[in-house]
Amino acid sequence: MAESKSKSNPNPADAPKAVVGRLSLYLRELQHLVRDGHETISSTRLGKILGFSDAQVRKDLAYFGQFGYPGIGYRCHELIHAIKQIFGTDRQWPVAIIGTGNLGRALVGYKGFDNQGFKIVAAFDIDPAKVGGAIEEAPIHHLDDLERIVQEKQIKLAIIAVPASAAQSVADRLGASGIDGILNFAPVTVTAPPNASMVGVDLAIEMEQLTFDVVKRSGEKK
Amino acid sequence: MAESKSKSNPNPADAPKAVVGRLSLYLRELQHLVRDGHETISSTRLGKILGFSDAQVRKDLAYFGQFGYPGIGYRCHELIHAIKQIFGTDRQWPVAIIGTGNLGRALVGYKGFDNQGFKIVAAFDIDPAKVGGAIEEAPIHHLDDLERIVQEKQIKLAIIAVPASAAQSVADRLGASGIDGILNFAPVTVTAPPNASMVGVDLAIEMEQLTFDVVKRSGEKK
Repeated sequence: MAESKSKSNPNPADAPKAVVGRLSLYLRELQHLVRDGHETISSTRLGKILGFSDAQVRKDLAYFGQFGYPGIGYRCHELIHAIKQIFGTDRQWPVAIIGTGNLGRALVGYKGFDNQGFKIVAAFDIDPAKVGGAIEEAPIHHLDDLERIVQEKQIKLAIIAVPASAAQSVADRLGASGIDGILNFAPVTVTAPPNASMVGVDLAIEMEQLTFDVVKRSGEKK
Repeated sequence: MAESKSKSNPNPADAPKAVVGRLSLYLRELQHLVRDGHETISSTRLGKILGFSDAQVRKDLAYFGQFGYPGIGYRCHELIHAIKQIFGTDRQWPVAIIGTGNLGRALVGYKGFDNQGFKIVAAFDIDPAKVGGAIEEAPIHHLDDLERIVQEKQIKLAIIAVPASAAQSVADRLGASGIDGILNFAPVTVTAPPNASMVGVDLAIEMEQLTFDVVKRSGEKK
């Protein structure tokens, strides 16, 4: 049950993608635990809740530092703070959204962003009927004003919620305007501009994970 | 470069979640390759494109069967078909969406679902002003008609796109109406009804993966 003291010189930059993905799951579960009144958790218990081994939990976290206490486990608040520092979400990130169709509007209102430190402060569109309006508290600007607003509001992250056919040109404009990170919802492969990171969201992947499970269960029932 | 002949008795049900997740990535990349005119691909090349080792690719696929040909690699069309069979997406799945706010409307129009075998055939709401209408080709029914429509249209999958406060009760109703798989977009923990699988979509996780990368890159620049 004692948490590991391994890796004296951890290097977060060495962490594989899968580890960083699990780090989000640890964070979310720790936030649930705190909400339910828990102050500490062992790697065994944390792993069990998420379906990982305790060794996996300890090995993943060891990329980022030494967080466990022998005989205690992890202190939830402390580990939450540490993980948020690793993600850079211990501070709030102003975010721009490009495209104010149903998806753009839904994302501006998405509570899951607010809760984790992402605040959509500006929306962009090219439709004159929409420019000048607002979605919740985010004003809708013309895409031509992207560079100016990005600089004024110190925006580093942007979400692409435009039709597939416009996604690459929007990504290029975002790169040129100094955006560091792009989340792409358009169901099309987009090349990241130089100096920007990009994550593509493919919602069909989540559906495939679901049907895999459904097919597996129906096979077991037979 | 020869593809492995390992695992004579693969069992898909043994595949860990992470493997099933990567299977979606393989499928999507193979679909891109075919679109670009490629007929075959080696595990080395497929892994390289996605940032995995060739051993990883072969080990993952070995859970599901033996797909490689010595000296050739994988035949793209054949492997696409095999993976779609594994996911059950070699046929079309009719899907119900619950909640016709911005998110629900966006998801009905999401091209990424259509492309991969998911067709939203019915939407549900409790707002009398919306019931009787339609989003694209999906009629909007009252939630009280859920069970009847699910049976009539043989719907096995449903997407929850309602406010967080209503998510659990909607999940319970979905379970009771015979739905096998639920994709939950509400930013709240929902317990799956008995006999149904559930996948929760947490869009903030994608943002965290992005900021991790952005923070790492800005550290490297210093």
